[in-house]
Amino acid sequence: MTVTDELLKNNADYAAGFSGPLPLPPSKHVAVVACMDARLDVYRILGLNEGEAHVIRNAGGVVTDDEIRSLAISQRLLGTTEIILIHHTDCGMLTFTDDDFKRGIQDEIGVKPPWSAESFPDLDEDVRQSLARIENSPFVTKTTSLRGFVFDVATGKLNEVTR
Amino acid sequence: MTVTDELLKNNADYAAGFSGPLPLPPSKHVAVVACMDARLDVYRILGLNEGEAHVIRNAGGVVTDDEIRSLAISQRLLGTTEIILIHHTDCGMLTFTDDDFKRGIQDEIGVKPPWSAESFPDLDEDVRQSLARIENSPFVTKTTSLRGFVFDVATGKLNEVTR
Repeated sequence: MTVTDELLKNNADYAAGFSGPLPLPPSKHVAVVACMDARLDVYRILGLNEGEAHVIRNAGGVVTDDEIRSLAISQRLLGTTEIILIHHTDCGMLTFTDDDFKRGIQDEIGVKPPWSAESFPDLDEDVRQSLARIENSPFVTKTTSLRGFVFDVATGKLNEVTR
Repeated sequence: MTVTDELLKNNADYAAGFSGPLPLPPSKHVAVVACMDARLDVYRILGLNEGEAHVIRNAGGVVTDDEIRSLAISQRLLGTTEIILIHHTDCGMLTFTDDDFKRGIQDEIGVKPPWSAESFPDLDEDVRQSLARIENSPFVTKTTSLRGFVFDVATGKLNEVTR
């Protein structure tokens, strides 16, 4: 039995106690962009309930074209206006360089990824970089609040990154 | 006061009851790729606890270069081997076409996005498309289980998409 099978059993329990459906647009008009890190349960960290906020996540919580695409859809079609970015302490993205990571793939399979791996050496600086990428995108035009945070995996606290 | 401020107050409550830190690598060796939809509380849907699985999310739960990047980092640096894809019923991606969406942006700001918006007309077909993109990527090489599901927002149940 795979872990996937085990998680599907958990889903049966979830469905047994489920009351739905909720409306499609996020009721709090918020979109969160966070790292994929397993320790970040975004709904719990922010006290969110189902139906309240879009949650976009990737390795690092960085902003690439796919996050711009998701934010543009979130704002233009589903009415979100506030954006919250969340990086975190002890992040895997601090532990390697793009060059080494891509060399490792090239050595294994013979093909070097054409994309950036988006590793970074400094958390606060990368939060500012992600904020700047959103501000510089012409496609994210409905933002009324844009703030970036570092989640402390030792304390559970969000610490804001000053601009 | 913004909604962001309100959510930060929730975070103070979360931090007050927090016990950490947990290890960086996901203990269940699973990566989930899901839609950003506000109604999908992935941890609750799968019965996941903090620290157990990477969670990658975007508009649609589709697989683009950024999800391949995240999965490559997840597998190569942090040891995940199982992948779970989650789309869902009543998805916003079913409600528009890429052409119309990009025309709307071009009409507003004069610039047409160079990226695909990744809208889709059929849920099961797009889950299969996302599975195929992972299988066809040379950069995701450590997968032992790859399965795709549609979450029913009316019942809370995950229904597997047959290949």
